[in-house]
Amino acid sequence: MGDPRLLPRRRTPISLRRVDSSAAVDLPHFLRACRGLPGDRVPVWFMRQAGRSLPEYRARRGSGSILDAIADADLACELTLQPVQRYGVDAAILYSDIVVPVAAIGFGVDVAPGTGPVVEQPFARRADLERLRPLEPEVDTPYVLDTVRALCTELPASVPLIGFAGAPFTVASYLIEGRPSRTYGRTKALMAGDEPLWHDLMDRLVDLAVTSLRSQVTNGARAVQVFDSWAGALSPPDYARYVLPHSRRVFDGVADLDVPRIHFGVGTGELLGLMADAGAEVVGVDWRVPLDVARTRVPPDRALQGNLDPALCLAPWEVVDAATRDVLRRNAGHPGHVFNLGHGVLPETDPAVLERVVELVHAEGRADGAA
Amino acid sequence: MGDPRLLPRRRTPISLRRVDSSAAVDLPHFLRACRGLPGDRVPVWFMRQAGRSLPEYRARRGSGSILDAIADADLACELTLQPVQRYGVDAAILYSDIVVPVAAIGFGVDVAPGTGPVVEQPFARRADLERLRPLEPEVDTPYVLDTVRALCTELPASVPLIGFAGAPFTVASYLIEGRPSRTYGRTKALMAGDEPLWHDLMDRLVDLAVTSLRSQVTNGARAVQVFDSWAGALSPPDYARYVLPHSRRVFDGVADLDVPRIHFGVGTGELLGLMADAGAEVVGVDWRVPLDVARTRVPPDRALQGNLDPALCLAPWEVVDAATRDVLRRNAGHPGHVFNLGHGVLPETDPAVLERVVELVHAEGRADGAA
Repeated sequence: MGDPRLLPRRRTPISLRRVDSSAAVDLPHFLRACRGLPGDRVPVWFMRQAGRSLPEYRARRGSGSILDAIADADLACELTLQPVQRYGVDAAILYSDIVVPVAAIGFGVDVAPGTGPVVEQPFARRADLERLRPLEPEVDTPYVLDTVRALCTELPASVPLIGFAGAPFTVASYLIEGRPSRTYGRTKALMAGDEPLWHDLMDRLVDLAVTSLRSQVTNGARAVQVFDSWAGALSPPDYARYVLPHSRRVFDGVADLDVPRIHFGVGTGELLGLMADAGAEVVGVDWRVPLDVARTRVPPDRALQGNLDPALCLAPWEVVDAATRDVLRRNAGHPGHVFNLGHGVLPETDPAVLERVVELVHAEGRADGAA
Repeated sequence: MGDPRLLPRRRTPISLRRVDSSAAVDLPHFLRACRGLPGDRVPVWFMRQAGRSLPEYRARRGSGSILDAIADADLACELTLQPVQRYGVDAAILYSDIVVPVAAIGFGVDVAPGTGPVVEQPFARRADLERLRPLEPEVDTPYVLDTVRALCTELPASVPLIGFAGAPFTVASYLIEGRPSRTYGRTKALMAGDEPLWHDLMDRLVDLAVTSLRSQVTNGARAVQVFDSWAGALSPPDYARYVLPHSRRVFDGVADLDVPRIHFGVGTGELLGLMADAGAEVVGVDWRVPLDVARTRVPPDRALQGNLDPALCLAPWEVVDAATRDVLRRNAGHPGHVFNLGHGVLPETDPAVLERVVELVHAEGRADGAA
């Protein structure tokens, strides 16, 4: 902890406070786009950019639970930096997992390689709330703070670090199902069948997310992304009733920190307006909704993040090139666009393809005169 | 084959030909709703109504591949009838699987219990087209025709049999991935990366679907459902380019048989208009899109099928009751509504809940004055 590399750099959050267009000339591209400020290029990063598609990742990561890798701050820092160095992306995303806080407070969750989060004793009854005590980041996840601080000394000022948290619904779905699900049957049955318990569970998960995100930002993260990856499994009325109030409290809980907040989910075409209501500056869009259509579903002051289909990155370059240009074209005319995939990088992806996507977005984004 | 029970009854398809409102007074509720004709109740059936949620199914079905059960016409007939007898649903769905035709022509596909379709040698190159010869229903799937004919003698005239086929995209995804996928990476890479091969593959799968459906209808099925279960994985532009023309040819290929055609997929909110363009009379909607919203995305002459969230059927009855009424309410005023779940019955579902859903739909559908 005495290593000067690990000291927080305070200038980062401060430089973002109450930014306005005139004062923002040297804001990083990524932060400009999140704020909807005109810029001279479209920033780009990739969800799961630190991952199995990179040979340098596979070489360093080894086997075993991702939770062990996350708990090794040197390793987590290096894995976070790898894609920044290789791809020249405009943002770094903290190497983490949405179950880190619940695992750290001892709920009994692990991430099985090739499967995903598995819970020994799934959440099923009121007594299980006792297993969800508040998070003390300095005590429970000191390695996360070490990683964040180290990254802030390693990353160039032009590449902000994005903090990372699971949204209450998606974390709850893992705790209740006990393993990845395609149907979320137990989750929905508890949600609709014991609404008071559901809300109490969500309250605890809101607190975990807020506490974790606040600790990441106060240690140097310059934006946050809240992953509600599986919210798209819900109908709009169920989302509005059981999830939206809690997600809103997560975003409200970090609003005073004045960092851009990104709200991401998959298959959320019908929910985009409601997700925007939760309050984030940036709404993630998967590839199922063309960006020009997504634009009509959120207020005009929001930025959009997305939305190249990650599976198309397995096709020949001409296909990726055309699809990338199509994504750029569909948000032309609005400064609030963070280019990304619609979901995480697939492990089979050739890193050379993502390198070319970054080059193309940097070369062609705003070439349409949108700035 | 000499068993008179197995002789086709010809009256069924004939009675449906060029039906109009005045001549349709004794049409079954299900067929009326498919045609958008006013009726005095909303018909209801459940996708995967013949399945593991029924104790009588588990007792008869045993273990082993579903393909073996389908190839046993007596068993397939009985399994198809079980939910009709228990639930009093308004339609029977042929007990089948979307890989039946490709398996029957020897592509080398099986359905692994608990996993789904698995292919020993996935489709990967032009030479694999040779493995997809035309289907001869009487030779390759005589058991399907036996089952259909037997069902037509067993089912009351008021309960039509729905024929069953996989749509070309969804069948292709199994052949290419080799097993169930969440990302469809190989499928999309082949689709976009070798478009001529993709279209040749789809051509073969169109022919299989049309041939299979025609044989089911000419033997007595009074409607057809085409399952494009995973089409929702595609963006609208990709769907329009790579899938829609082929799905349209499936529907065109059975248009002269004058039976209602149902087009189903999951997560297809953005695709509903394009799917309607493919030509079916009935568009399936999963629970993610409220029916009143779905209604705005398809032409007014189409019926909608759906869309109770099957996971909600695991919740207490009050929840199911409210959700069922909400589905009915959202299509109020349009006669074209076939009540169904948004996807298949979950195995954990209590059959008593589905019994009550049928009662409720029969009692409350049209009580709003929509007829």
